[in-house]
Amino acid sequence: MSALVGVIMGSKSDWSTMSHTVETLEALGIPHEVQVVSAHRTPDLLFAYAEQAHERGIRVIIAGAGGAAHLPGMCASKTHLPVLGVPVQSSMLSGVDSLLSIVQMPAGVPVGTLSIGRAGAVNAALLAASMLSADNEAIRNALLGYREQQTQNVLDNPDPREA
Amino acid sequence: MSALVGVIMGSKSDWSTMSHTVETLEALGIPHEVQVVSAHRTPDLLFAYAEQAHERGIRVIIAGAGGAAHLPGMCASKTHLPVLGVPVQSSMLSGVDSLLSIVQMPAGVPVGTLSIGRAGAVNAALLAASMLSADNEAIRNALLGYREQQTQNVLDNPDPREA
Amino acid sequence: MSALVGVIMGSKSDWSTMSHTVETLEALGIPHEVQVVSAHRTPDLLFAYAEQAHERGIRVIIAGAGGAAHLPGMCASKTHLPVLGVPVQSSMLSGVDSLLSIVQMPAGVPVGTLSIGRAGAVNAALLAASMLSADNEAIRNALLGYREQQTQNVLDNPDPREA
Amino acid sequence: MSALVGVIMGSKSDWSTMSHTVETLEALGIPHEVQVVSAHRTPDLLFAYAEQAHERGIRVIIAGAGGAAHLPGMCASKTHLPVLGVPVQSSMLSGVDSLLSIVQMPAGVPVGTLSIGRAGAVNAALLAASMLSADNEAIRNALLGYREQQTQNVLDNPDPREA
Amino acid sequence: MSALVGVIMGSKSDWSTMSHTVETLEALGIPHEVQVVSAHRTPDLLFAYAEQAHERGIRVIIAGAGGAAHLPGMCASKTHLPVLGVPVQSSMLSGVDSLLSIVQMPAGVPVGTLSIGRAGAVNAALLAASMLSADNEAIRNALLGYREQQTQNVLDNPDPREA
Amino acid sequence: MSALVGVIMGSKSDWSTMSHTVETLEALGIPHEVQVVSAHRTPDLLFAYAEQAHERGIRVIIAGAGGAAHLPGMCASKTHLPVLGVPVQSSMLSGVDSLLSIVQMPAGVPVGTLSIGRAGAVNAALLAASMLSADNEAIRNALLGYREQQTQNVLDNPDPREA
Amino acid sequence: MSALVGVIMGSKSDWSTMSHTVETLEALGIPHEVQVVSAHRTPDLLFAYAEQAHERGIRVIIAGAGGAAHLPGMCASKTHLPVLGVPVQSSMLSGVDSLLSIVQMPAGVPVGTLSIGRAGAVNAALLAASMLSADNEAIRNALLGYREQQTQNVLDNPDPREA
Amino acid sequence: MSALVGVIMGSKSDWSTMSHTVETLEALGIPHEVQVVSAHRTPDLLFAYAEQAHERGIRVIIAGAGGAAHLPGMCASKTHLPVLGVPVQSSMLSGVDSLLSIVQMPAGVPVGTLSIGRAGAVNAALLAASMLSADNEAIRNALLGYREQQTQNVLDNPDPREA
Repeated sequence: MSALVGVIMGSKSDWSTMSHTVETLEALGIPHEVQVVSAHRTPDLLFAYAEQAHERGIRVIIAGAGGAAHLPGMCASKTHLPVLGVPVQSSMLSGVDSLLSIVQMPAGVPVGTLSIGRAGAVNAALLAASMLSADNEAIRNALLGYREQQTQNVLDNPDPREA
Repeated sequence: MSALVGVIMGSKSDWSTMSHTVETLEALGIPHEVQVVSAHRTPDLLFAYAEQAHERGIRVIIAGAGGAAHLPGMCASKTHLPVLGVPVQSSMLSGVDSLLSIVQMPAGVPVGTLSIGRAGAVNAALLAASMLSADNEAIRNALLGYREQQTQNVLDNPDPREA
Repeated sequence: MSALVGVIMGSKSDWSTMSHTVETLEALGIPHEVQVVSAHRTPDLLFAYAEQAHERGIRVIIAGAGGAAHLPGMCASKTHLPVLGVPVQSSMLSGVDSLLSIVQMPAGVPVGTLSIGRAGAVNAALLAASMLSADNEAIRNALLGYREQQTQNVLDNPDPREA
Repeated sequence: MSALVGVIMGSKSDWSTMSHTVETLEALGIPHEVQVVSAHRTPDLLFAYAEQAHERGIRVIIAGAGGAAHLPGMCASKTHLPVLGVPVQSSMLSGVDSLLSIVQMPAGVPVGTLSIGRAGAVNAALLAASMLSADNEAIRNALLGYREQQTQNVLDNPDPREA
Repeated sequence: MSALVGVIMGSKSDWSTMSHTVETLEALGIPHEVQVVSAHRTPDLLFAYAEQAHERGIRVIIAGAGGAAHLPGMCASKTHLPVLGVPVQSSMLSGVDSLLSIVQMPAGVPVGTLSIGRAGAVNAALLAASMLSADNEAIRNALLGYREQQTQNVLDNPDPREA
Repeated sequence: MSALVGVIMGSKSDWSTMSHTVETLEALGIPHEVQVVSAHRTPDLLFAYAEQAHERGIRVIIAGAGGAAHLPGMCASKTHLPVLGVPVQSSMLSGVDSLLSIVQMPAGVPVGTLSIGRAGAVNAALLAASMLSADNEAIRNALLGYREQQTQNVLDNPDPREA
Repeated sequence: MSALVGVIMGSKSDWSTMSHTVETLEALGIPHEVQVVSAHRTPDLLFAYAEQAHERGIRVIIAGAGGAAHLPGMCASKTHLPVLGVPVQSSMLSGVDSLLSIVQMPAGVPVGTLSIGRAGAVNAALLAASMLSADNEAIRNALLGYREQQTQNVLDNPDPREA
Repeated sequence: MSALVGVIMGSKSDWSTMSHTVETLEALGIPHEVQVVSAHRTPDLLFAYAEQAHERGIRVIIAGAGGAAHLPGMCASKTHLPVLGVPVQSSMLSGVDSLLSIVQMPAGVPVGTLSIGRAGAVNAALLAASMLSADNEAIRNALLGYREQQTQNVLDNPDPREA
């Protein structure tokens, strides 16, 4: 089945974060694709990717980047598809620069921003699943199952002193 | 037509920000509803709202809140619908507290976070339109028209020295 | 004797911080209980816990959480008991997000917030002891003894060069 | 009836914030006293105040201060009573300095810290009421009434577009 | 004479800042052009502008933008000309978001970043003049004269108490 | 009598802050001089000022500056006299940039830094008085009188509700 | 010879920072004393120390503390001697809390604040030496020698590539 | 061939960062020189270096420094050559102090600031190359080749899962 979610990232070094997006998409059975696309080193590739995503059947784009993170916002400037941004933790400023560069978009071009790092990478996949659930019952059921499972895990292990 | 987007906010004082969400939804012709729901003062109402939103036909929830802004995240904990969060500028910390309280969700329960204040309020509506465009051609056309218009506005007015 | 202090935390990973609360309560001989309750993964459990705490004899609730830390504030929205919040150090932002998410509550629903991490965990127990001292002489004596001991430790070891 | 809550502040300029503590205590019918006590300009007065508060019948001390705000913490170092701190918004740093100076106490001497500014001032009174409710039914009833009223206010005015 | 410096900005609202760049270029007699180019609303225009600047004789590009300010960095990704970035003060975060979005570029694509707001706008023109001075004696003399004048202004007015 | 304290500032616009230093020195009867010296626009003047201060009888230099505030630190690099730095509130970043630029000196060249803005300007004068008190009884008595007066002012006006 | 500089710190854990103050004082041949004095755990000892320092011949007090660092400011409230503050790096917030708690003193009671951590600890000793140089030729010569040495070290080793 | 770019840094400890500037200049074949020059420990050397750089044939100065980083700005105050600043990551505040001390220059004396740490060090060399490209075809070709190479590297390795 062709990819519904496109996962892109600015550099191979973002993979240790963005792999959590891919793992979560796989756990939910959501067809996806993954690619390195750099806003600064391959701007033409970024524009081509964003422009063609809709016609290729992509429904949601998830973009992870760090530092002066322009990938999610520039991607959103070239497509009407929903773009989700994952701020990758930067080596210097703990991801504050990544977060502000992604979330503080001007009125007119939105990026739905998730938390910094691994949690945000997982949540981008879950939010994409949430969007796709509107007209895809299999994904909705997978999402509901995932959420029930994590609730049950807490309920089954109420004592923090046990390993 | 019944509401597709539910717009909630923690207090009446958030209306000066969140009115921009409503104006943008109206400009795009997206059916919506709007209500004050306080996470801290009306927690039971919040839970009921979030639990019932899906069955009432709501497709996206947009929640605006400021300070220790728990409304978007707690809403997301009670529904599998996509929840978008708008950090309202706080009187003390310029919305940094609002932003971090909304965006830094743990893995498992996502909130798609927009920019602080008016820009974020506009963009939440646009991102909701983007999601709804997947299976609603009228909204997609309205969104594409909105975006073309804002592009044309820049192209038609290239000289910053003119009023 | 039934628990006077309820210690809850959002995840098992908070235990390395919150164990210092429990150790301090034990040192002071204060009956307590401890449980993982997640605001985002188990919201219904949180509401039930907060609603029932008073009738079960709990006098103070201590809640530790990190990131977009909603546990203390949402707990406080569902009980009139005093709620103390411990910001757990987050992996990305050193606990600044945890601190602001807990302390910046709107007027109407207070959370008494302690310092980030281990110090805050110890101090939450001491502040609970302080509250309970009003009508419990054994706890007051234990608290006074604890404080005298820490004062004496400094007085007995004035030279920082000695191990 | 003699004061149960002592409200102190570092300077007369803090009154525009701390008056909200006093108004809330009055709304709840809690006997209190109010005084300017400066940690830096009247350190001996501060020590005397803190040492004598318990024997004078004070049950909770609420201390508001701004900038390098040492009043709450130094007060807590001289009494075993619960001390609540209100960070007053500073003219330069929006109260971030006040907040960190109050909340980041070392292990051993707790200050229960509330939000910056007016909201924190209101909440300090509410948290004091919460503590006093343990053995004072009149205060508990007043507190429960206050909370019900604020909940009802939201429920009665769900439409943010109405003034 | 054709423009040596291209001044672009993301929105007309940036003009109150970027006008100081233009005034300074005029004071130094440096040929320039000025245009609104939005990274997010007119991405194709931005790419065309950056790609063609060199062949049109532009020697330095000065780009001003606020919030998630992607204009300078994306411009730099499409030209080998020196790009200078001016962080425009944002309404919410005082320009911290603008500054970090501009300055924290990854290795490979530089943006020479100036101070936030008016001072940075003036300084971008001065730094451009500094670069152009290498092979343009008229600009060098104008720059040296400008600097001598501002030094003399301080030396002539040593008493801060005089208006 | 020749000046014991040299007060310098980077720009005339700093006078509204630094006038509080001068007023306090006058209140204490400490001979002083005041001058605009800009680190960036008059670097040679700064070096000459710092090098000659000791032989001219200056005992303490107080330097106020804002933004990338290099005046205090560069002054300290050229004299063994004690240099006190006053961070002037910057228009963009509330003086955080001023504070960090002044206080974070590397090991080897100290600047004694005071609080941001008016309070720091007053305190620089008081700290200079404190240093000069070591061998000047008149200044010591003036300082002790000043401190007693401010203590008495608090003691005489304990009620914050009175104007 | 009796101590001219009193070095105090809030806890033994501050010694790894404050040992650099003592080493520098020793390198300069300045008589000193060193002691743990905790503002929060031994407030009475702090007051006694500050009150008696002048009559015991102490000329400068250097106080190092971390977190909600009240030691320097409270010391300054009880003596007219110059007090220098060293912000010790805190485990959670990198010393930002320590810095703001120390430097942001209100008008009336100054603390001369040095940089965070080791550099500040060295510089506190150098600034004390600078003050004492006014009437102590041996210390002045030692200070001048120390500064000449560090200058010469740079001049003798201009190549950063050599170990 | 004589140096076109002068690379200076405040301390040998900055070499681990600034070596990336030198490596990049070497990769581009740009003649350069490198030297430790400390603003605070060798202020006279700094002034001499900046004053003489132009007549020695230097075209661009790159200055790296950390903490209260005055080297780039003071260098710029003494030359009309373009000065680029590299904020070196400080041990305490992650380079935020370095960044603000360098970038927030007042109107009149610009420093083109690059990102914190290694990325900024690489980019300073690339921005210098960009400036020198105006009249040096060899450098322009080297720069264009460098940029094409990094673009090709991304295009050749699109899959982040491959090592």
